[in-house]
Amino acid sequence: MGRVTERRRVIRIRDGAVSARPDTLVGEEPLEIRLGGRPLAVTMRTPGDDFALAAGFLVSEGVLGSDGELANIVYCAGATEDGSNTYNVVDVQLAPGVPVPDISLERNVYTSSSCGLCGKASLDAVRTSARWHLDPPADAAARITPATLTALPGRLRAAQRVFDRTGGLHAAALFDSDGELLDVREDVGRHNAVDKVVGRALQEGRLPLRDTVLMVSGRASFELVQKAVMAGIPALAAVSAPSSLAVDLAVESGLTLVGFLRGTSMNVYAGEERIALGAAAGRA
Amino acid sequence: MGRVTERRRVIRIRDGAVSARPDTLVGEEPLEIRLGGRPLAVTMRTPGDDFALAAGFLVSEGVLGSDGELANIVYCAGATEDGSNTYNVVDVQLAPGVPVPDISLERNVYTSSSCGLCGKASLDAVRTSARWHLDPPADAAARITPATLTALPGRLRAAQRVFDRTGGLHAAALFDSDGELLDVREDVGRHNAVDKVVGRALQEGRLPLRDTVLMVSGRASFELVQKAVMAGIPALAAVSAPSSLAVDLAVESGLTLVGFLRGTSMNVYAGEERIALGAAAGRA
Repeated sequence: MGRVTERRRVIRIRDGAVSARPDTLVGEEPLEIRLGGRPLAVTMRTPGDDFALAAGFLVSEGVLGSDGELANIVYCAGATEDGSNTYNVVDVQLAPGVPVPDISLERNVYTSSSCGLCGKASLDAVRTSARWHLDPPADAAARITPATLTALPGRLRAAQRVFDRTGGLHAAALFDSDGELLDVREDVGRHNAVDKVVGRALQEGRLPLRDTVLMVSGRASFELVQKAVMAGIPALAAVSAPSSLAVDLAVESGLTLVGFLRGTSMNVYAGEERIALGAAAGRA
Repeated sequence: MGRVTERRRVIRIRDGAVSARPDTLVGEEPLEIRLGGRPLAVTMRTPGDDFALAAGFLVSEGVLGSDGELANIVYCAGATEDGSNTYNVVDVQLAPGVPVPDISLERNVYTSSSCGLCGKASLDAVRTSARWHLDPPADAAARITPATLTALPGRLRAAQRVFDRTGGLHAAALFDSDGELLDVREDVGRHNAVDKVVGRALQEGRLPLRDTVLMVSGRASFELVQKAVMAGIPALAAVSAPSSLAVDLAVESGLTLVGFLRGTSMNVYAGEERIALGAAAGRA
């Protein structure tokens, strides 16, 4: 079974000096996710929280929306010819009566064969499969202050345990609207880190994740916005830039999308009604 | 048709000051790759170099190895109900006699149904599909100097045109063994940037890419090492950390893998015989 970190020999070159030493690397192993015994997807992931990863992946794809729809997740023993368990194949069993969708996924993106593939079709696919509406804040007091948001990157970084040893991990952290850390997960794949956070929340009966902020360590792509929307998370904050389609999906879904969250600065690309802009000192 | 960059309105918060202005974002649109008319994969990519992306993807998957095996790549007109061309669906036609493999890919990872999925199976899949052997350097003079490697990040950065405007792009650059830039491609997806570089080289009859170094702007994952190996590239350098499986594949394939290439420092995880370690000032 793979591990979260592994040791390998490395040759270091530092200002002309050459030395050999062991180094700690982030573990990477394939995980096959099966649904009712049928292979659905393979992702390269950091071992650990595999059941949460599988559950979160199925939330993103619109298959799961509550823990009651999930019957069981198991590692497939006997997947190898010699009958051993690699702990790299998980099978998800849905609860009785939960429809097993006809999922045709490649690289974790919705395809619409009846339509020329385009950004609009991708937005439509998320809208038709989303289970929750992202409600606007009930009143001004429910808004998130800029100060709360600017505190998140430091808290995410402080909570990243494996990154400090390997420098090789993406992180996703869930905060409440006051900036208190609810959960943090790390993975070699950015999508996987978010799936692990969402899957853990599903397993604990916490979906939809109202009044939370999801913070990611890198960029904000379409697929990360999709995952937030599908989990009912109303706000996504990223250290780096969003893409055009990420912004389009956020606008269409009513998600608050913050990018370039660094120091005391940020860019708000969508859903600014959830942010207490009046709490910023002034308007330029 | 999608564009490389798009403009969206953004609210900026800078040290308490709030302002609204247009911002330039990296474009993101889905691309469906078809092989002989059959849908094979969908990737979220930055529009541009789409034929190169499709060709490079098929090199990575072991389908294409030379431009002679490629008959044609076209955008699928009439993919929508109204018959318009979204420029988001490409169809690759192989030359007569080139076998169309039975590819079962999900999320761009090889699966072996006869075997319990594990890192070893992933390594085996690349070994059996690789077309070229990565030869060791012919002599000491053919080795890459550390000084050549440490110059690459600056050259990559200087060649990134879209990143400066959006901050949202991954880059992949190909250099010769003297550090001269041969090609650079940018994309919202890190895999896509490499596929574009490799696909362009295939289209120009330059595979295998002997005596080159591929430099990527982020981490070195298993899949990026796989792409280098499949294109015959003998050395991969990354700004950040590699994963355990990336190192394992590099060792097994004879690829030189450099990580944490920053300033005058780097870590060499595999294939150090291609690096002129004696050219570093001393050995610690």
